[in-house]
Amino acid sequence: MKFCSVCGHTVTLKVPENDNLPRFVCENCATIHYSNPKIVAGCLPVYQDTYVLLCKRAIEPRLGYWTLPAGFMENNESTEQAALRETAEEANAQVDIRKLYTLTSIVHVSQVQLIYLADLPKPEFDISSESSEVRLFHLDEIPWDQLAFQTIRNALRFYIEDLARGEFPLHCVDINTPPGVYTDPKN
Amino acid sequence: MKFCSVCGHTVTLKVPENDNLPRFVCENCATIHYSNPKIVAGCLPVYQDTYVLLCKRAIEPRLGYWTLPAGFMENNESTEQAALRETAEEANAQVDIRKLYTLTSIVHVSQVQLIYLADLPKPEFDISSESSEVRLFHLDEIPWDQLAFQTIRNALRFYIEDLARGEFPLHCVDINTPPGVYTDPKN
Ligand SMILES: [Zn+2]
Ligand SMILES: [Zn+2]
Repeated sequence: MKFCSVCGHTVTLKVPENDNLPRFVCENCATIHYSNPKIVAGCLPVYQDTYVLLCKRAIEPRLGYWTLPAGFMENNESTEQAALRETAEEANAQVDIRKLYTLTSIVHVSQVQLIYLADLPKPEFDISSESSEVRLFHLDEIPWDQLAFQTIRNALRFYIEDLARGEFPLHCVDINTPPGVYTDPKN
Repeated sequence: MKFCSVCGHTVTLKVPENDNLPRFVCENCATIHYSNPKIVAGCLPVYQDTYVLLCKRAIEPRLGYWTLPAGFMENNESTEQAALRETAEEANAQVDIRKLYTLTSIVHVSQVQLIYLADLPKPEFDISSESSEVRLFHLDEIPWDQLAFQTIRNALRFYIEDLARGEFPLHCVDINTPPGVYTDPKN
């Protein structure tokens, strides 16, 4: 940020009065510009308990790798609405949310990811501008070395373990690794 | 937003290609400026099971009303770190997080509020620049008509009900009321 979005004046990075972190401050109109973490919301769509719906990314980052339908939450929607919307947009799938399943703070990129466990009532889905391929994978055939993100691997691992136990608690995870490490598909 | 924060040019509100919502777009440097919901994180600090720690707001909005220690999550911290930091800043209290307790989408103001159930091991706390008074309330003496926000009332009600049952599940709530309604202390 170089310019004030309110008045167009150049901004200065400084700690405002009664604050303890540097912010971009406009000396012209006195606006303090805050930057805050973003929420990513999505679903882990399950079909007949042992199949999961994955999307092959048609866009960067991690183009060509498999992911769960998820994306940035928009203003004026709930977290569940965001998860359902992303599932409809990316996988053309209508799902029924069962529960909030993972909450991950991805500290180094200032994101909080919420994944809802959801049921896909019918095997109906389709590709989209963000997904070059959408398909059901049996839990025994998940492409572990072709998954896009650590959060996706975590959610799928939790689901396999929890299905065996018959309990699906909320999993809270913090990830705080430098960029690059979590994109290693072998991790 | 009137000006591009990257180059200072005036921005235009329009739906970008491959998008379906209007964004502030800079025709000069091609930056698309997104606006997303903010996360508020805080704690419900419990002392000896039947006392809760509340803070009297020294700042607007709802100056003079009682609230739980909570505030905007910062970049490069986890949701738990944010909740602990706000509790330290606003109530000068060190707590031990027990679990994520409420997740509320406050749709009309584009906020997601996370309240952690936390234990206050010792009755040690203090006022701050944001709290003119900080004190323990027995569950029988909560100032219901002097609480600052609906989310605070919800969290306290959930706790009283859950303490009686001996179970403390995650409570997910959506609030979608016009501004003003949820500030009525009688609701
Ligand atoms: Zn300005
Ligand atoms: Zn620009």
